[in-house]
Amino acid sequence: MTSTSLRGVWSPMLTPVDADLMPDLKRMAEFGRYLLDNGCHGLVIFGTTSEATSFSAAERMAVVEGLLEAGLPADKLVIGTGTPSITETAELTAHATATGVAGVMMLPPFYYKGMSDQGLFDAFAQVINRVDDDRLKIYLYHIPPVSQVPISLTLLDMLVGEFPDAVVGIKDSSGDWNNQKAILEGHPGFGTFTGSEMFLLNNLRLGGRGTICATANVIPAQIRALYDNWQAADAEDRQASLLWMREVLSGVPVIPALKALVAQRTGDPGWLRVRPPFVSLTEAEQKALYAKAEKSLSPVA
Amino acid sequence: MTSTSLRGVWSPMLTPVDADLMPDLKRMAEFGRYLLDNGCHGLVIFGTTSEATSFSAAERMAVVEGLLEAGLPADKLVIGTGTPSITETAELTAHATATGVAGVMMLPPFYYKGMSDQGLFDAFAQVINRVDDDRLKIYLYHIPPVSQVPISLTLLDMLVGEFPDAVVGIKDSSGDWNNQKAILEGHPGFGTFTGSEMFLLNNLRLGGRGTICATANVIPAQIRALYDNWQAADAEDRQASLLWMREVLSGVPVIPALKALVAQRTGDPGWLRVRPPFVSLTEAEQKALYAKAEKSLSPVA
Repeated sequence: MTSTSLRGVWSPMLTPVDADLMPDLKRMAEFGRYLLDNGCHGLVIFGTTSEATSFSAAERMAVVEGLLEAGLPADKLVIGTGTPSITETAELTAHATATGVAGVMMLPPFYYKGMSDQGLFDAFAQVINRVDDDRLKIYLYHIPPVSQVPISLTLLDMLVGEFPDAVVGIKDSSGDWNNQKAILEGHPGFGTFTGSEMFLLNNLRLGGRGTICATANVIPAQIRALYDNWQAADAEDRQASLLWMREVLSGVPVIPALKALVAQRTGDPGWLRVRPPFVSLTEAEQKALYAKAEKSLSPVA
Repeated sequence: MTSTSLRGVWSPMLTPVDADLMPDLKRMAEFGRYLLDNGCHGLVIFGTTSEATSFSAAERMAVVEGLLEAGLPADKLVIGTGTPSITETAELTAHATATGVAGVMMLPPFYYKGMSDQGLFDAFAQVINRVDDDRLKIYLYHIPPVSQVPISLTLLDMLVGEFPDAVVGIKDSSGDWNNQKAILEGHPGFGTFTGSEMFLLNNLRLGGRGTICATANVIPAQIRALYDNWQAADAEDRQASLLWMREVLSGVPVIPALKALVAQRTGDPGWLRVRPPFVSLTEAEQKALYAKAEKSLSPVA
C-alpha cells in the first residue's frame, strides 16, 4: 500500500454562486484562502457540502482550473469527482489528476441502489483503468446517509487489494464510529479521514489522518486546535466543545445554514445563494440561526 | 393545461454497449426498430432500465443524435434528461427538445435526499426557464424506489399550476397504485403513464395514457395486446397474464436479465454487456433465466 501524505483538517468547501447560480470563482478563491489561513490544511472542492452534484461536469472542471489560476496551491486541493457514470467520473478524475492536485475524492455511482460489491468494484476499476495515470490518488467517499450506496468493508478490501497505489484513503461520513474503527484497525497506514468532526479525536487516537468535515467551513480554527492538541490533557474538552456548532445547525438545512454563516461573517449576502434543490434560508431563519450561534459561543477557542 | 398527444405502450429502451462499454448505436437502432415493429408506440431513451445515469451527458446527446440519424422517428422518441444538476439537465433537455422529439422524461435532482417540495420545484423551474423553448414537453419521472427522491402530489400540483404548457405528464414508477390513482383522479387529461405493466388496465380505466415499463423491452406485443383490448371481455385475463414475466425476472437483477433475454432472442451475446455498477449475468444465471422463461410461457399472446 502506498501511504498518502495527506493529513489534518480539510474543509469540503462551500461553493458560492452568482445571481445566475453559476459558480462564483472570485468569492470561492477568497474563501479558500480564508480557510487555509485560518486552520485548514487543505480544501476538498466538490464534496457533498459543496453541492458538488448540483454542478455539471464542465462547470466542475472550470472551477478547478479557476481556483488554480487564482493561486490556490494544488497540493492543498482534493477534488470530488464521483458521479453515477464511469465515463463522467473518469473524465473529471483525469482532469483533476492532470492539474497536479493532491488527490480526488470519489463517490460510488449513486443512482442505482442495492448494487453488489462486485459491481461497485467494477465501476471504480473502470475509472482507474480509464484514467490510467500513476499520479492518481483516490479517497473513497463513504456517505450512505446521502448517497444511499455504501462502500462496504468488503469493497474497501477489494479495492485496496487490487489498486494499492491508487486507492489511498477514505472519507467515512457514515456517522457510524464502529465502521470507521473497523477501517482504522483493518487498514493501518491507510488515509482514513472522519467525515464528522465529532469523531476527530477517536480517529487520531487510532492512527487516522484527520477530518474532512462540513463544519470546517465555519469553525476551522477550533477544529484545527483540537487536531494540533489531540495528545494534550484538554483534548477531550476540546472535542466536546465542537458540539456547539452541531447544535447551532440542528433543525436547519445544513448547507444553506453554513452559507448563511459565511454571509454573516463576510457581510456578503451573495453567500446566501444555493442551487436548487436547496433553498436559501429565509430572513427569519437567518436571524434565528445567528442568535443561536451568538448564544452558544464555544468556551474553548 | 396543454394535453399531451402521447399514449400507448412505450419501452424504456435498454442501451446496448460495445466491448469498451460505449453505447452501441447500431445494435440500439436495430432494437428500437424491432420494438416499434412489435407493439411499442414509442421509445423512451434513457430511462432507468436504459442505465441512463451510467452515461455521461456527452454520450447521451450523441446517442439521441445517432438514433435520429439512423432513422428512428423523432415523434416516437421521449428522452430521459434528469440529472442531479439543473444546468446539466437543462443542457440535455434543450438538446433533446431542439431535435424535435416528442418529449423529455425528467428525474428530480436525485443526489440530496429529503429536499423540500419548494426546492424541487425550484430545480424544475430553473430547468424550464433555462431551456426556454415552447416545444418543451416534460414527463415527470416519479421512481422513489430507485431515486429516493419522490415527486409528491403537492409538487406535481405546483408544477402543473405554474408550467401547464411544459409539464404535460408523469411516469409513476412508485409501485403504489394509490399514488397513481390520486394523480389520475386529480389531474384528468394529464399524461399519466404507469411505470409498471401490472397497473396498465387500472391506468387506462381511469383515463391514463398507458405505460412506460421495463418489460416492454421483452414482451412488447403482449403488453400492446392488452392496451388494444383493454375494454374487451378478456382484459382482466390479459392483465393477469403479464405477471409471468415478473416471475421470470424475480430474484435476478432486472436490467442484466432483460439484456440477457434480448441476447437470447437475437442470438447476439454482445447484448449481455452492462455498465458497472451492474454485472452481467453469469452463464449459470442465464441458463436458469432462459429455462424459467421457457417453462412459464404465457398462455395469452
